Amino acid sequence: MPDKNSHTDDIRMSGFRERSRVETVLAWIDVQAARLPVEAVSPGAAHGRVLGTDVIARYDVPSFARSAMDGYALRGAETVGAGDYNPLPFHLAGEVLPGRPLDREIPPGSAARIMTGAPLPPGADAVLPAEFARESGAQVEAMAAVPPGKNVGPRGEDVRAGATVLHEGRRLRPQDVGLLASVGISEIPVVRRPRVRIIATGNELVPPGVEPAKSQIVDSNSEMLSGLVRRDGGEIVAAELIGDDRGTIAARLTAGDADVILVSGGSSVGAEDYAPQLVAELGTLAVHGVAMRPSSPAGAGRIGKALVFLLPGNPVSCLCAYDFFAGRAIRLCGGRSPDWPYTSHVAPVGRKIVSAVGRVDYTRVRLVAGSVEPVATSGASILSSTTAADGFVVVPAELEGYPPGASVTVYLYDPPG
Amino acid sequence: MPDKNSHTDDIRMSGFRERSRVETVLAWIDVQAARLPVEAVSPGAAHGRVLGTDVIARYDVPSFARSAMDGYALRGAETVGAGDYNPLPFHLAGEVLPGRPLDREIPPGSAARIMTGAPLPPGADAVLPAEFARESGAQVEAMAAVPPGKNVGPRGEDVRAGATVLHEGRRLRPQDVGLLASVGISEIPVVRRPRVRIIATGNELVPPGVEPAKSQIVDSNSEMLSGLVRRDGGEIVAAELIGDDRGTIAARLTAGDADVILVSGGSSVGAEDYAPQLVAELGTLAVHGVAMRPSSPAGAGRIGKALVFLLPGNPVSCLCAYDFFAGRAIRLCGGRSPDWPYTSHVAPVGRKIVSAVGRVDYTRVRLVAGSVEPVATSGASILSSTTAADGFVVVPAELEGYPPGASVTVYLYDPPG
Repeated sequence: MPDKNSHTDDIRMSGFRERSRVETVLAWIDVQAARLPVEAVSPGAAHGRVLGTDVIARYDVPSFARSAMDGYALRGAETVGAGDYNPLPFHLAGEVLPGRPLDREIPPGSAARIMTGAPLPPGADAVLPAEFARESGAQVEAMAAVPPGKNVGPRGEDVRAGATVLHEGRRLRPQDVGLLASVGISEIPVVRRPRVRIIATGNELVPPGVEPAKSQIVDSNSEMLSGLVRRDGGEIVAAELIGDDRGTIAARLTAGDADVILVSGGSSVGAEDYAPQLVAELGTLAVHGVAMRPSSPAGAGRIGKALVFLLPGNPVSCLCAYDFFAGRAIRLCGGRSPDWPYTSHVAPVGRKIVSAVGRVDYTRVRLVAGSVEPVATSGASILSSTTAADGFVVVPAELEGYPPGASVTVYLYDPPG
Repeated sequence: MPDKNSHTDDIRMSGFRERSRVETVLAWIDVQAARLPVEAVSPGAAHGRVLGTDVIARYDVPSFARSAMDGYALRGAETVGAGDYNPLPFHLAGEVLPGRPLDREIPPGSAARIMTGAPLPPGADAVLPAEFARESGAQVEAMAAVPPGKNVGPRGEDVRAGATVLHEGRRLRPQDVGLLASVGISEIPVVRRPRVRIIATGNELVPPGVEPAKSQIVDSNSEMLSGLVRRDGGEIVAAELIGDDRGTIAARLTAGDADVILVSGGSSVGAEDYAPQLVAELGTLAVHGVAMRPSSPAGAGRIGKALVFLLPGNPVSCLCAYDFFAGRAIRLCGGRSPDWPYTSHVAPVGRKIVSAVGRVDYTRVRLVAGSVEPVATSGASILSSTTAADGFVVVPAELEGYPPGASVTVYLYDPPG
């Protein structure tokens, strides 16, 4: 445990005693969020997943020398001197199609019609492209010379049997999955997806689709978190809205079906903020209170095998605490990089970004003519500030902010394209 | 139709007469790939989708003034002068919890215990944070002054009823879906996903999981294309491997269930390359042959309502033709940006990139210590070149390539993170 915030005494209504530094929390996550075991999946289920082991090619691809063009397979040496004004005649010795090889050797002085991808017939060592050939009857004229080996892909050209085609830890691209299929791997060893349980708490909340009465609001965090978890490779085992009821929250925390549990709301020091106390009682509350804005009431701990993240109920705090802490843990459990899945670039500050020494700030920003400007409304409850923003800037704890003209890294909410 | 490559005469085995310029093909796509109609989906199905209309908030969020802190709701004016050495006493007038409002006005000189997110009780106009209060029995002492309005979020703070919360064309972020839920939109109007049919042709191909006999290879394009289509927001209606059979291909091309049809293989001018001829007969073959490398035998056309893309069977050509043409059409039909969904940045060339004037080159590259180097094997059939590469560089038709030191834009295959 990195700090003495790990306590079981009742911290409700007494305020945070000490806030953990963001780096302390990240270090705790990096120790706790172990990569999950490997499982085998079909190629169709492997896209975007992380390879759990190195993968070795089972056979040469291709397992035969093949034509790289549509044209005529022949002996390259016999085309020397051929040209537009010196067509050289060859006897047409048949046709080779992909998947339909010619097993007999073609005689000297002859050529076989061949399609791209078809196996080179015995005897031939080059392919004359169709563009440079004129076929008539049982004869074909070569109007260009092709040296031996020309327009031929050798056996094992793409991959050799026994070669490591992809390494453990690789996040599979569409072409990777194609490649794995082509080298005979139909059960792909990938890191299991983290199973994530989402618990939204709050007596004031109603689920999406229900009209809120006075004093009620619609739960937006469950849906937002579901999208974030899926983005980061997690599989959602449950996403439930429950009241601020100690027993119900305790039951969900101990359901035992998740690798990661996200609790939205009830994370602070209010009378109905049961979650921190419950995590401390049922497991270990490693972090409660972080020196950052927003989401200072965030927390983290462990109950049995599950990592538990306490995310403030305010939507922006919830997003921020997810992005800093919970998302990192989910990505690491799933074998991904801990880094943010956001495109980033360096840009100049156009309008002053204000922060305070001693805390990390997550500032929502807009890009205005290439310059970075903070989004005016910055309240933690203002979810619309994260939809109006293009992205965010992180102000480290040792800085008071950034003056106009400073260079900052902007993380963009939208994917490229 | 942009050029005279639109023809119905048999072009098989006669070579390409004229190749379209890449820009001509892109312009054709931009005219043909119309945005699909709008459909309503649940919030859970809306992540990453494109909004089909502007969305207006149905009510204020929140619909009441609420506390932004855990603490005590009171009249701010009554706290003037309070401090650590001058605690001011208030009568404890009850408790307000989120979702459990206090309907009676709190009397002057009193304070109500309040939780973050709870509605401010009538009479109160500020919240004293718990950290600055000491409660004992029926009394609470204020050890700090809070002006009226302090720590209170006004009604409509996040969103006002009637405001446009998100605009048509927006690709929905996780927080956007949360925001839509919170303003009462549970049926989200999004652009329908393009339905895509994938047809892999080739007598030499066997499906993944089947051991290829001599002269056979495993079909890798269906799986690769499936991943690419899903990445670009398409929904796959079928992905079939079929032989080079004219009738079967014709039946699939006219199935009528797809917005976009991808045909992999049989796109060139070989004897068994039926697809171009079929598209010309059954609809319009607008493009056949493109001045690019790889994938010069690519084609595009239309059969009924479906856009048809002819992708060369060579895996790298297939990826390249997908990325240049088919992917763009799928993204446009789905309401997305036509731009590549790849992260890009400018980097110096470390080792010469060779091309030829008159054609666009798609060069797979590695980043070596920040410099761009072409991946040695560049054969169109070498799928492993696209897994060994970090990304690609596009060399425009008017250039012979890039010398060391030139600045080029690199598109990265891997997503950020």
